[in-house]
Amino acid sequence: MKKLEQLYEGKAKKVFATDVDGVVIVDYKDDATAFNGEKKGTITGKGAINNRMTNYVFQQLEKEGVPTHFVEELSDRETAVKKVSIVPLEVIVRNVAAGSFSKRMGVEEGKQLLCPILEFSYKDDDLGDPFINDDYALALGLATQEEIDTIKSYTRKINEFLMKYFLNAGMKLIDFKIEFGKLADGTIILADEISPDTCRLWDVETNEKLDKDRFRRDMGNVEEAYNEVFKRLGLA
Amino acid sequence: MKKLEQLYEGKAKKVFATDVDGVVIVDYKDDATAFNGEKKGTITGKGAINNRMTNYVFQQLEKEGVPTHFVEELSDRETAVKKVSIVPLEVIVRNVAAGSFSKRMGVEEGKQLLCPILEFSYKDDDLGDPFINDDYALALGLATQEEIDTIKSYTRKINEFLMKYFLNAGMKLIDFKIEFGKLADGTIILADEISPDTCRLWDVETNEKLDKDRFRRDMGNVEEAYNEVFKRLGLA
Ligand SMILES: Nc1ncnc2c1ncn2[C@@H]1O[C@H](COP(=O)(O)OP(=O)(O)OP(=O)(O)O)[C@@H](O)[C@H]1O
Ligand SMILES: Nc1ncnc2c1ncn2[C@@H]1O[C@H](COP(=O)(O)OP(=O)(O)OP(=O)(O)O)[C@@H](O)[C@H]1O
Ligand SMILES: [Mg+2]
Ligand SMILES: [Mg+2]
Repeated sequence: MKKLEQLYEGKAKKVFATDVDGVVIVDYKDDATAFNGEKKGTITGKGAINNRMTNYVFQQLEKEGVPTHFVEELSDRETAVKKVSIVPLEVIVRNVAAGSFSKRMGVEEGKQLLCPILEFSYKDDDLGDPFINDDYALALGLATQEEIDTIKSYTRKINEFLMKYFLNAGMKLIDFKIEFGKLADGTIILADEISPDTCRLWDVETNEKLDKDRFRRDMGNVEEAYNEVFKRLGLA
Repeated sequence: MKKLEQLYEGKAKKVFATDVDGVVIVDYKDDATAFNGEKKGTITGKGAINNRMTNYVFQQLEKEGVPTHFVEELSDRETAVKKVSIVPLEVIVRNVAAGSFSKRMGVEEGKQLLCPILEFSYKDDDLGDPFINDDYALALGLATQEEIDTIKSYTRKINEFLMKYFLNAGMKLIDFKIEFGKLADGTIILADEISPDTCRLWDVETNEKLDKDRFRRDMGNVEEAYNEVFKRLGLA
């Protein structure tokens, strides 16, 4: 497979065209941003960790019946994936109160929720990715009811899988964000990434944060946390 | 029925105990507030208009199969209603983009939505009534799935009825907010009010605003707008 011209540079990844129809290459960077790009920095080694963790998790999810964009790992930081048009919804799952949820709802960080929360944000940087509900997605034509139902059903499966997967490695899955895309024929598949950039992971004993919150909140030991997750998952 | 001690003074109404079990009296004020109480003023005659309009609409909704708290109109401003424990959800319906929705979503005021939006806010003044979704309500124990289903089904009926009702009087129903309550046995009924304080109403020809936005936005002719709605509905 030939890596051709860059199609897009995001905050954490670059996307390149290839000579294979319907396939692009994602190239994971060490760049870190937070608060919609306001805070910027570098987390050395993050690109490789996020690439390999995403690829491992996506292959496991395929076995659980969740179709993903994964095609082939090409290098430490590069992976061939199915090119999709991203559904403009950030799909967030919360098992435990944290972050913006805690602040907005006046619920202490760490409080177990009575049931998992699945929520959507409208993926639009200019608007600051505003929180929406299903009706907003329908009323603004962001997705059809059928697409929403598919996305929700996959997302619940993904949460079930990830909670167990991380717990086995001594971590609680507090919340996470995923993105779905559409293939040319309309099929919905999991895209983007699943990594400590996009998951809140706390040590099951100490509640130590092992994710991007260490960067967001200037807690130090950021690289160490990413490496620790990688090691605990047996991927190092 | 005897009016006994005041139980609660809200921003727009007072609630009094009575000597009848399970019945309270709501007493509509001319006080107007906006932006969660930051802006304060008086709209002369509003209390009587909102009282009589709410009572008329609630009686029509009963005929449509929506149970309400209405018991008996006692005076211009006073109505006996079934005492409920208010479900801590503000139920908002949007047919046309306006207000905070337009701002948050970058959608021009007046844009027709592809389908009506039903949304919930968590009724909590200290938190600023934050926008939530169904999962939030379940995860925080604000309502059960059955209560949510009942509330949504009544709300859709109410929107159908109100759109026709206002259109017949030359007004478009842009959006509105309602509240539901629970009787001692758990039955969900429509409570609070439906008035130009809680509905956005635009003239069907000119799009002139005939509601509380005239007060919120210092547009003038506030009393005139409330009187105009009252007259058009044949209630004056
Ligand atoms: N399979 C795929 N096909 C096409 N685009 C993809 C695919 N997977 C992810 N993307 C998109 O590629 C970009 C990845 O870059 P990155 O994660 O750095 O973006 P970002 O800075 O977070 O920006 P955005 O706000 O667009 O997510 C994102 O826009 C993401 O939605
Ligand atoms: N049938 C009812 N039984 C008990 N309380 C009711 C009933 N109908 C409405 N209420 C409540 O009575 C109060 C009415 O006052 P008002 O509308 O002025 O409140 P408010 O200032 O808007 O405050 P809130 O934020 O509580 O709605 C509200 O709290 C409302 O929820
Ligand atoms: Mg991204
Ligand atoms: Mg009120």
